[in-house]
Amino acid sequence: MQIEIFTTGGTIDKVYFDAKSRFEVGEPQVGELLREANLSLELHVTPLLRKDSLELTAADREQIRAAVAQSCATRVVVTHGTDTMTTTAAALADIPGKTIVFTGSMQPARFRATDALYNLASALTAAQLLPPGVWIAMNGRVFPADKVRKNVAANRFEEI
Amino acid sequence: MQIEIFTTGGTIDKVYFDAKSRFEVGEPQVGELLREANLSLELHVTPLLRKDSLELTAADREQIRAAVAQSCATRVVVTHGTDTMTTTAAALADIPGKTIVFTGSMQPARFRATDALYNLASALTAAQLLPPGVWIAMNGRVFPADKVRKNVAANRFEEI
Amino acid sequence: MQIEIFTTGGTIDKVYFDAKSRFEVGEPQVGELLREANLSLELHVTPLLRKDSLELTAADREQIRAAVAQSCATRVVVTHGTDTMTTTAAALADIPGKTIVFTGSMQPARFRATDALYNLASALTAAQLLPPGVWIAMNGRVFPADKVRKNVAANRFEEI
Amino acid sequence: MQIEIFTTGGTIDKVYFDAKSRFEVGEPQVGELLREANLSLELHVTPLLRKDSLELTAADREQIRAAVAQSCATRVVVTHGTDTMTTTAAALADIPGKTIVFTGSMQPARFRATDALYNLASALTAAQLLPPGVWIAMNGRVFPADKVRKNVAANRFEEI
Repeated sequence: MQIEIFTTGGTIDKVYFDAKSRFEVGEPQVGELLREANLSLELHVTPLLRKDSLELTAADREQIRAAVAQSCATRVVVTHGTDTMTTTAAALADIPGKTIVFTGSMQPARFRATDALYNLASALTAAQLLPPGVWIAMNGRVFPADKVRKNVAANRFEEI
Repeated sequence: MQIEIFTTGGTIDKVYFDAKSRFEVGEPQVGELLREANLSLELHVTPLLRKDSLELTAADREQIRAAVAQSCATRVVVTHGTDTMTTTAAALADIPGKTIVFTGSMQPARFRATDALYNLASALTAAQLLPPGVWIAMNGRVFPADKVRKNVAANRFEEI
Repeated sequence: MQIEIFTTGGTIDKVYFDAKSRFEVGEPQVGELLREANLSLELHVTPLLRKDSLELTAADREQIRAAVAQSCATRVVVTHGTDTMTTTAAALADIPGKTIVFTGSMQPARFRATDALYNLASALTAAQLLPPGVWIAMNGRVFPADKVRKNVAANRFEEI
Repeated sequence: MQIEIFTTGGTIDKVYFDAKSRFEVGEPQVGELLREANLSLELHVTPLLRKDSLELTAADREQIRAAVAQSCATRVVVTHGTDTMTTTAAALADIPGKTIVFTGSMQPARFRATDALYNLASALTAAQLLPPGVWIAMNGRVFPADKVRKNVAANRFEEI
């Protein structure tokens, strides 16, 4: 089964630059995360953006929407910062005929202790099993994208 | 959502005993694997067996079947060695009204490079999204349990 | 053999706070790093500061100097940010009768790919084997503290 | 500084073969272990044997002795199984003018929780700092090779 993964940045892709003593969104971590999973999936990874999701503009969201809409794949995963994940998901709500699953992580994929791999595995599984629509896979659950919000204080996604 | 995880051993739970210079099936690794995933799931872990799946007997399979059948949970994950995973899955085929997902790993969960976490995340996601029946989540895919086999040479599960 | 480890912050102790979308110096990582090393050493860990080393003041350095000077241990390791490690090391040069080894890391200890554990192991080993004086253990080598500088562009310590 | 690392097998190099459901001594893990350490050392890795140390013969030990004796390097690390580490070390006692440090691990290097990297870092540091002779770096300490034994019950090396 063919799945296209679009990467847009967010915490999941944060790396550390010692020379600047700071963390920045770096190259997509998806390939590295999946390297050991021994997958029988036909995956295509398309890097789109490298931004904190708080910095995404309407133009960025239109770029993401267009890329997903034009993809040959009917099953799509989008990695994305968590803070505005639902906003971008809403912008893709009118794409017909595709199962689109957003995911990301609260801790960078490069950390030893991270939710990144779990979330990505969950999103890739959901993308295969769910009907067309836009979904968010976070904290072990899969939500319809318009029925969920990030609870910043509790550091998790929950149903509206 | 409530999910019960039954552990039966297999490669996923193999640990190393230096004093004996050998690996053995140890305590269930599920809790440790999920510790960082920041899950909003109500999980119950029930250890049943600690065996290589090649050593499982008919009585062992009956024990697994009975435990799953008697579980309050309608969504169940079973961690299991890969070599006879389909045999045990077949023994559970007649349990009605439950979504039962088997998973395991080709490399022990304690290894830095392992498919264990991906597979477990995939199984827990599938257990929430699929209808009643017996399923196998391995290599990034989810198969009906009676439509899959382990290809030992290729080290992966594939459709029959 | 008794060794006291003083922690002062730096990249080695950087953690990620999702709620603020940023990294900060967090609690000392030394204990977590050493948990699996199966050490037969009598170690005492004393947290002193949680600062980027670029933010350390003369008062901070005096605090570090006083703590090391007053320690019962004659063998001491100081974890420290790399940018001003040599400056703090110089401030301790007049402490007699103690083997003092500074170390830190270019990548946070919490990363899967990090130099933190290697550097800490190297520093703890050097603290046992070297005569009194102030030393810097970085990049696999052990330098007299007044004969080394951080080459920021090359991302490593080198002899002056 | 130039250091030659000879690998002879042991727990440190144990890998898992799913097809056989068992662990075996695999290819040397030294390179993988050191990949992230950002070392400024001139290291040469020479694989000699892939054996559990309980299976090493007198001929094997002679091969190790000859390889170390003929090495251009005056500073040498030997990775080795722990059970007969002291026996092999004794066989090298008469090599003049070289600092030779044996190390290994109680848990395989491929495990997430392992003493392998600490021990290797300790051995490489000791090889630079100690005078000629044969040494064993284990459990955070560095012992003269003829003054140490493995306490199997306590799972650690201790002074005789």
